[in-house]
Amino acid sequence: MQNRTVRLGVLGCGNVGGQLVQLIAARGHAVAERTGITLEVVNVAVRDATKTRPGIDPALLTNDAEGVVTDPNIDLVIELIGGVEPARSLILSALAAGKPVVTGNKELLANHGPELFAAADRIGVDLLFEAAVGGGIPIVRPLRESLIGERVHRLIGIVNGTTNYILTSMADAGASYGDSLAEAQELGYAEADPTADVDGFDAAAKIAILATIAFGKRVVTSDVHREGIANVRAADVDVAKRFGYVIKLLGVAEELADGSLSVRVHPAMVPTSHPLANVRGSFNAVFVEGDAVGELMFYGRGAGGRPTASAVLGDVVDAAVNLSKGTHASLGSFGPARFSPFDEMRSAYYLNIDVTDEPGVLAAVANVFGTHAVSIRSMEQEGLGAEARIVFITHAARERDIQACLLDLAGLKVVDRISSVLRLVGAD
Amino acid sequence: MQNRTVRLGVLGCGNVGGQLVQLIAARGHAVAERTGITLEVVNVAVRDATKTRPGIDPALLTNDAEGVVTDPNIDLVIELIGGVEPARSLILSALAAGKPVVTGNKELLANHGPELFAAADRIGVDLLFEAAVGGGIPIVRPLRESLIGERVHRLIGIVNGTTNYILTSMADAGASYGDSLAEAQELGYAEADPTADVDGFDAAAKIAILATIAFGKRVVTSDVHREGIANVRAADVDVAKRFGYVIKLLGVAEELADGSLSVRVHPAMVPTSHPLANVRGSFNAVFVEGDAVGELMFYGRGAGGRPTASAVLGDVVDAAVNLSKGTHASLGSFGPARFSPFDEMRSAYYLNIDVTDEPGVLAAVANVFGTHAVSIRSMEQEGLGAEARIVFITHAARERDIQACLLDLAGLKVVDRISSVLRLVGAD
Repeated sequence: MQNRTVRLGVLGCGNVGGQLVQLIAARGHAVAERTGITLEVVNVAVRDATKTRPGIDPALLTNDAEGVVTDPNIDLVIELIGGVEPARSLILSALAAGKPVVTGNKELLANHGPELFAAADRIGVDLLFEAAVGGGIPIVRPLRESLIGERVHRLIGIVNGTTNYILTSMADAGASYGDSLAEAQELGYAEADPTADVDGFDAAAKIAILATIAFGKRVVTSDVHREGIANVRAADVDVAKRFGYVIKLLGVAEELADGSLSVRVHPAMVPTSHPLANVRGSFNAVFVEGDAVGELMFYGRGAGGRPTASAVLGDVVDAAVNLSKGTHASLGSFGPARFSPFDEMRSAYYLNIDVTDEPGVLAAVANVFGTHAVSIRSMEQEGLGAEARIVFITHAARERDIQACLLDLAGLKVVDRISSVLRLVGAD
Repeated sequence: MQNRTVRLGVLGCGNVGGQLVQLIAARGHAVAERTGITLEVVNVAVRDATKTRPGIDPALLTNDAEGVVTDPNIDLVIELIGGVEPARSLILSALAAGKPVVTGNKELLANHGPELFAAADRIGVDLLFEAAVGGGIPIVRPLRESLIGERVHRLIGIVNGTTNYILTSMADAGASYGDSLAEAQELGYAEADPTADVDGFDAAAKIAILATIAFGKRVVTSDVHREGIANVRAADVDVAKRFGYVIKLLGVAEELADGSLSVRVHPAMVPTSHPLANVRGSFNAVFVEGDAVGELMFYGRGAGGRPTASAVLGDVVDAAVNLSKGTHASLGSFGPARFSPFDEMRSAYYLNIDVTDEPGVLAAVANVFGTHAVSIRSMEQEGLGAEARIVFITHAARERDIQACLLDLAGLKVVDRISSVLRLVGAD
């Protein structure tokens, strides 16, 4: 066992950075006992080095982040600033100086990951980023290492805790989207401006990173088809429950038989018997389907200072051990991805259609489905008079055919409104 | 990227070994593309090298296992024979010859793990064993690497697919233990002699290995308190359902506040809202509770040739990459464990007591609980006359106090029989 001190420079001292420094203080001894490596936090770069931060020695603070990444007294850099710049430049500087980097920066990796991975590989140092997806859940490392021999064909992730909290609360309390969002904001689970979460931007960044790792191809946020949860109604949650489903915001990344990828974020109905259905509140999970391994799921706290700091610490120890051995984990190379057109996607669908309560309605509606070769799995007519509606669940059909169906249905005299359209995932 | 061939010797060609050789043939190209390493199966050692095996080139077969582990043309040994000997001696020979070893042998590791880990560390080669616990589920690597900085205080595992299949089928069909076991045997989920599974021996071996890794202390099968599922009755499964629980065979490993360990296998009632409750059929899962990371769960196929071969392949690639870099993963050292006496364990309990249907019964029974300072969370009286029974759920109490309670209850005139006693797990 090596006995060696690895000197750390931390960039950023927000929720995760602060918890990391305290976690290293609390667990450094145990890490040294297991690995022979002593972790020493040399500097913490912050915007305002004069502000006192509970649990952080003020002598560690500096406002010279560029100085930290180039300081020859620092062996390893931990980037927890977030956002694209200056994080990107600082990481590239650290790598260029031969320092391994640990980051939890999903926005940066989802937009510039392959460029950074290539830089790390070229220089021959570690760039680790477990904390960027799924907070404390070990998912990046199992995908990169345990499943390196596996042909993963699909990932399905609940990777945004805010939306999962809102949807769980809608399902439990029968509350509206607006009320559940307001409650989540009051409790601190949602931001005052919830756009990044509820419109699926955060989930899109995370599924882009996971797709990159799982398929070894370059996937960035803008490649991800994205739909949010703002249109999910209490009535849909209720119908889902009666049909044996729950509604979840899912990130889905698939490699199709022709080698093209489909990467998307949208709300979907998941059967209650599916392991993802029981992922409740602000928890996250990533469900993996592989050819040999079958189905796997990784579940845990997808956010929060301490869980995320735990993931960062795991990477820091790994990179420190590698450094002391003069080795590093190879990320491999990431080829260009070819994306399958979204309207070629196949999925089963849930449709909730307000209709005129008169004879022949069902025949008229069913005829439209037939015309577009969309086959019906189950159908239920509900309500009377002005409240009449038909709920359909289809067998798997092409997105394009469903869209054509919806267009024709909207044109029918007996159809008042198509009030909900949701995909089914995990039902086949 | 290194371009290097790593030559493999496989010991054993049963279900996992056969699938592994085929998986390497199918995925070798993808592995080479990502890592620069070509995996070449040089020999497969079997008892009868003349028997034809579908998908395996007969030229690879040999019956000289000792020759394989010492052959200088073999770089890495994969042990899939199972059992303690000759597997143990062969692994020690391979390690002594400087060859990394990948094994899926839970029986061996649960009894001689720390000796083998120490040998590997002393020699400075990899000994990897992801497949020994949880089949295809990445759990050993995340525990060893991702959570190395984490203080894990509890693991709860559904680590035996046979018993989970039986208990799931009892819950779904309301069938008896005997009928569900017979069905599992017919379908090939249970052996003709099901002892190793239903009496908890298999689960005990796996939880011993997990406890060793999670706590860094030596835990062997004989340290594990073990109770099987043969006494679980359809009536218990039914009561559990009505109270909002499911019955699962759990392996539990805890590090208590005083540093002592409690490692045990027993059936338990798990709240339906707990992630482990939705682990159905032959699936496995390991639930991890850590100080900083909070709750994690790892879910997947706990057995089967292909899922297990996938886990073996992940380890083989890891060991091959390390070999090509002249490095290896350190297992660290494993100190002696101190075990907490079983009767000091604290748990909530479910008790089902057949009573005489007469006034004052409840008072008499409740008085016994009070005497032993066991506090009642909920109580339900059911049935009439000869069918009268009382179902109790207690708050957390010491095992010793519960046992004293049971003794006194059995001595009461109004108590006909204590028909069921089950611990509650995950309910706090």
